[in-house]
Amino acid sequence: MKVAIYGLGSMGYGMAQSLRRAGHEAYGFDINAEAVNRFVAEGGARADIEAVGADLDVVVLVVVNAAQTEALLFGDVGIARHLARDTVVMACATVAPDFARDMATRCEALGLHYLDAPISGGAVKAASGELSIMLSGAAAARDKAQSVLDAVAARVFDLGEEPGAGSAMKAVNQMLAGIHIAAMAEALTFGLGQGISPETFIEVITQCAGTSWMLENRAPHIAAGDYTPRSAIDIWPKDLGIVSALADEKQLDAPLTRAALAQFVAASEAGMGGMDDAAVAFVYARQAGLTLPGE
Amino acid sequence: MKVAIYGLGSMGYGMAQSLRRAGHEAYGFDINAEAVNRFVAEGGARADIEAVGADLDVVVLVVVNAAQTEALLFGDVGIARHLARDTVVMACATVAPDFARDMATRCEALGLHYLDAPISGGAVKAASGELSIMLSGAAAARDKAQSVLDAVAARVFDLGEEPGAGSAMKAVNQMLAGIHIAAMAEALTFGLGQGISPETFIEVITQCAGTSWMLENRAPHIAAGDYTPRSAIDIWPKDLGIVSALADEKQLDAPLTRAALAQFVAASEAGMGGMDDAAVAFVYARQAGLTLPGE
Repeated sequence: MKVAIYGLGSMGYGMAQSLRRAGHEAYGFDINAEAVNRFVAEGGARADIEAVGADLDVVVLVVVNAAQTEALLFGDVGIARHLARDTVVMACATVAPDFARDMATRCEALGLHYLDAPISGGAVKAASGELSIMLSGAAAARDKAQSVLDAVAARVFDLGEEPGAGSAMKAVNQMLAGIHIAAMAEALTFGLGQGISPETFIEVITQCAGTSWMLENRAPHIAAGDYTPRSAIDIWPKDLGIVSALADEKQLDAPLTRAALAQFVAASEAGMGGMDDAAVAFVYARQAGLTLPGE
Repeated sequence: MKVAIYGLGSMGYGMAQSLRRAGHEAYGFDINAEAVNRFVAEGGARADIEAVGADLDVVVLVVVNAAQTEALLFGDVGIARHLARDTVVMACATVAPDFARDMATRCEALGLHYLDAPISGGAVKAASGELSIMLSGAAAARDKAQSVLDAVAARVFDLGEEPGAGSAMKAVNQMLAGIHIAAMAEALTFGLGQGISPETFIEVITQCAGTSWMLENRAPHIAAGDYTPRSAIDIWPKDLGIVSALADEKQLDAPLTRAALAQFVAASEAGMGGMDDAAVAFVYARQAGLTLPGE
């Protein structure tokens, strides 16, 4: 199949590689020309939408937010107007469910299929074709995109035919993941104040009822003093901001979400937005006058 | 060995059974006479401290808090003054580290050994002798109590010779466990508001980065509408209260702990203190006008 990937960042680039490995004819686009050049040098093609749009079977959007998704589809680049009827648009950014429903309606008005398909798993799994996808959209669209889903994902959660359901589930996951990272940072620094080293914290807690997937994944970054961004602080003001707005809409008080969001905003405002999200521990440590490993 | 267990509640009773099964001569005490009678009917002995105190090798205190621990040791029952020198006092309640240090000092002044030994794992693991123990105390005391530890625990985390270190680690674990239960409840009700059923929530999230040990353990109680207390709401105002006070002492701001504590206090004040702690979801659901399974 002819598949275009818009957004060759850490997730999109890996997905583009997985698509090529699976035998698809893959076209890549990014505002960063270097990423496109690297993709072309590896054997991929440049996604010139005016030239190839009408021949594409699937377009995958792997950008950072709703604004970029909308701009690519309906703004200056205007992907949507260049695609043939029945082309599948698979949108992977974390967005509000209402936004996903709106994009689906606008795509369907042009005869296109829309898949609400937020992804999870990180850059390593993107490159190995083992992402998780929280998928909703019409069965016909899913059938048409099946070989693309197979190429990039190890697990596809079927959340039904209504666009928005995938994004709602992604919001739930991000809510928990963000809270758990902040909770890990809060507990690790609390432990430091009680004389418990990060190593002992990790050794004991990962074997106890207090553990979480995020704790096991992120606490070692703090123990090692390594804040190379596998996933950056600045993702969380965005994603927990979406969750918080959705909670407000439904008049659901979400105090843990709000508390975690405030810690990530504080980290970002302190200039740590580009650091690994485990760096939220500095917000706690600085406030309490504690020193983290590597400082 | 001759071992007395003070407190035959859901944890202590199971530990007493594990001790008997391992061949120890076990004496049980509880203010609830029924629990003692049941233990005696099963072949255990009644712990009459005036009669057997001087012959005991180890005394295990499995009560709910610091006040009960102190009352048993130094109040009317006055266990400590009946014990022979070198008897080991193993204290399992969740308490503040300073309290554990104080009890250790007072026991040592009488020639007794003190083990700061908070436990984790629940009633089922207590009965099967597979608890986790976060242990600190003098090596000599640990050596003497080794066969007792072997009988009740699958895992003993060695936190060094200083009393208080075990309790500090327990506080860290409770902090995370309490936050994760509240986070699960917040996310599950948020999901409900977005049209995601508890079953779908559990199916997807347990396979994603948003999962935690507590979510996997407690969310099924909500899906089943079953609030039989495996672990009750009222544990959390107590345990998160200890954590919150310790954080305040060290001037560490702990906003997620504070938010979770407030939710459990609200649940308790709404009359749910004796229900399973997953019932904290009702605090969210009622506030947002949502209906949980079984309502």
